[in-house]
Amino acid sequence: MNEMLSAVALAHAIHAGRLSPADVAERCAQTIRACEPDIRAFATLDLDTMLARAQEPGLGQTPLAGLPVGIKDVLDTAGLPTERGSPIYAGYRPAADATVVRMALRAGAVIPGKMTTTEFAFMKPTQTRNPRRLSHTPGGSSAGSAAAVAAGMLPLALGTQTAGSVIRPASFCGVTGYKPSFKLIPVPGLKVFAWSLDTIGLFGAHVADVAFGAAAMTGRDLIPEESDELPHFALVKTARADQASADAHAALEAAGQAAVKAGARVSVIELPPEVEALDEAQGVIQSYEAALAFADEWDRHRDGLSDRLASYLADGMTIAPEVYDAARRTARRGRYALADLFAGHDALLTFSAPGEAPEGHATTGSPVFNKLWTLSGAPCVNVAGLTGATGMPIGVQVVGRFGRDKAMLGAARFLERAITDA
Amino acid sequence: MNEMLSAVALAHAIHAGRLSPADVAERCAQTIRACEPDIRAFATLDLDTMLARAQEPGLGQTPLAGLPVGIKDVLDTAGLPTERGSPIYAGYRPAADATVVRMALRAGAVIPGKMTTTEFAFMKPTQTRNPRRLSHTPGGSSAGSAAAVAAGMLPLALGTQTAGSVIRPASFCGVTGYKPSFKLIPVPGLKVFAWSLDTIGLFGAHVADVAFGAAAMTGRDLIPEESDELPHFALVKTARADQASADAHAALEAAGQAAVKAGARVSVIELPPEVEALDEAQGVIQSYEAALAFADEWDRHRDGLSDRLASYLADGMTIAPEVYDAARRTARRGRYALADLFAGHDALLTFSAPGEAPEGHATTGSPVFNKLWTLSGAPCVNVAGLTGATGMPIGVQVVGRFGRDKAMLGAARFLERAITDA
Repeated sequence: MNEMLSAVALAHAIHAGRLSPADVAERCAQTIRACEPDIRAFATLDLDTMLARAQEPGLGQTPLAGLPVGIKDVLDTAGLPTERGSPIYAGYRPAADATVVRMALRAGAVIPGKMTTTEFAFMKPTQTRNPRRLSHTPGGSSAGSAAAVAAGMLPLALGTQTAGSVIRPASFCGVTGYKPSFKLIPVPGLKVFAWSLDTIGLFGAHVADVAFGAAAMTGRDLIPEESDELPHFALVKTARADQASADAHAALEAAGQAAVKAGARVSVIELPPEVEALDEAQGVIQSYEAALAFADEWDRHRDGLSDRLASYLADGMTIAPEVYDAARRTARRGRYALADLFAGHDALLTFSAPGEAPEGHATTGSPVFNKLWTLSGAPCVNVAGLTGATGMPIGVQVVGRFGRDKAMLGAARFLERAITDA
Repeated sequence: MNEMLSAVALAHAIHAGRLSPADVAERCAQTIRACEPDIRAFATLDLDTMLARAQEPGLGQTPLAGLPVGIKDVLDTAGLPTERGSPIYAGYRPAADATVVRMALRAGAVIPGKMTTTEFAFMKPTQTRNPRRLSHTPGGSSAGSAAAVAAGMLPLALGTQTAGSVIRPASFCGVTGYKPSFKLIPVPGLKVFAWSLDTIGLFGAHVADVAFGAAAMTGRDLIPEESDELPHFALVKTARADQASADAHAALEAAGQAAVKAGARVSVIELPPEVEALDEAQGVIQSYEAALAFADEWDRHRDGLSDRLASYLADGMTIAPEVYDAARRTARRGRYALADLFAGHDALLTFSAPGEAPEGHATTGSPVFNKLWTLSGAPCVNVAGLTGATGMPIGVQVVGRFGRDKAMLGAARFLERAITDA
């Protein structure tokens, strides 16, 4: 197992002249060559282009300092195939880069290739193995992005979350996953699954690394200041707590205790019913919108869809617009109620996933502890550092107030240090 | 000048067996062959495919009864070039149909071709002439869609509005333009200009026709019942009233008087400052988002952009994220304040455009009376029937409450009849 690469540390070394972008790219390329046969995190690998671009003059002075950034294969790249995890798009070359890909390039990223995704970011597993234990799933749908960061192949990778596709694989692979506030990272050029939910996020080694990467790409003020203020966390287990394993409960308790030991306040609360209602509404909205977003693939390429996705889309077509509209109203009410919760707390602390990564590769695990938060639009981070019964990672999730990503990242960094120090 | 084609009347005749889809397609084809050399509404014309599809058995029993529907060329079509009004996409063939194109086809539309659009739906005029007077602009950006309906070439056509691109050309061409509530019609497969604003809409002869078309495509309950209830309109001139010509003021007054004569209540009100603030916020949001949405074209195809669009995008790049976020907060406050207005009124009645269509083809006219409403997300209709100083059409705009499209269409139909009867 290689050490993970800290984007902040590497960028700092490059900005200070102690390393060059080419040095970092070469180090990543070496790790990729060594690990990729086992991990299989790449849908398309193009080390030559990455290494050539890393030589470009001036790259070390860019915000991202020429660091390699992996791109999930549901994001359009004009220069690389964009297969979306589906045989329907085998060899597909989009006419344009996705906006976020251009944002990464403008900020000075070099792109090593495209990271595996489940079929259109739905449930059909990828070829990718969990770097923490190859016999286990890395989770989905952003499997390749999470695995490549966990394996030390890349310091940063872009993923997407519609139900739980950033936070869950981050938890399973023991990396930091950041799902920003809805629409903080622009989605043009992302293959739409459900337009009210699809959110682009980042994977990195630590909280500071994803904050750095997101700030560099967006030009936003997202890096939390060092502060002596002690956060007040609300620990919430949700109405689905019985679906979390004993070691997931233990990890959440341990995280809470570490926060208290580090000086934070932690209050155990229950979510109001308006917020809990987001969980069911997410399912309705995702299903209704997917049935429309994949109208072309359904009508013209049905044989290229997995049975599971085809039957999911068929179910979505039976949802009446009135039922969908009611779910959207539930979402609006839930967002108001969630905003009210933050009057008394700086951040929520909850499960990232039901437990350790499941063994085998037949499933990518469950987004049961993610759906609610995705529909809420709230920013979330998987904080790594804890482990479960068999020694595999179990993350915990910090949730912030919509639009207050910087404050959420600050609370997550506090918790990460508390866990490390505990 | 040909008579406009009523989608409702044609579908009724087909459903009743008095006409066939092939009869209607042939009639449209004849008008297109006769008028298109003057009007130039099509970016791509494919009458053979339309006429062949119109022969398909069972088409007459579909919701749209096999009616021809024109598709604005910013919407992806796998079977037809999708050039987006830009040389960058000359001959471009997308891999998939836009969702709304599939919705139209599933509902039984036949597609005659792609309708002209200004460059990426921005300001660079199209080749299209105003069917009411060829020396005048049809408006933009949905120029071809509005002109084809006005010329009696098509009963229905799809357009899009980011600032004023449905309501303004509808007013200039004397047709009904319907901009639904934001996201009522799904946007996957629409070339993004500004993701918080882009709205797909419909053109038809009368209010009943656009309601019929939207209901058929979306499966939604959008057709207002016949009712004896008399609407209460709020007549609003906005803070930009001085930019409306004398005959636009006269048309708005005449519409209000016609509504009163037909039994409606009409109260003249001023918009609260929170709602007026949407106008300026729209400009910030559109500009900031466009600069990101066209990142690929800017970076890789700048020579293919018009000077006007390039300088617009350059301006957008100077907007700080904090300024954009402030505009989004202004939008949220404005939407709340607008919702409150509807507590006392069924619909707002206001200008569609500053006056008659400008003479010449160097400009597509101003969206000054549309930007506020687009950002509000509220459903709008241009009601035709009135004319200006030189006899060209001047429409008036009915605005409804977000999500209450059916009620808005009912109020618009009431006003349309009142204008006809006055």
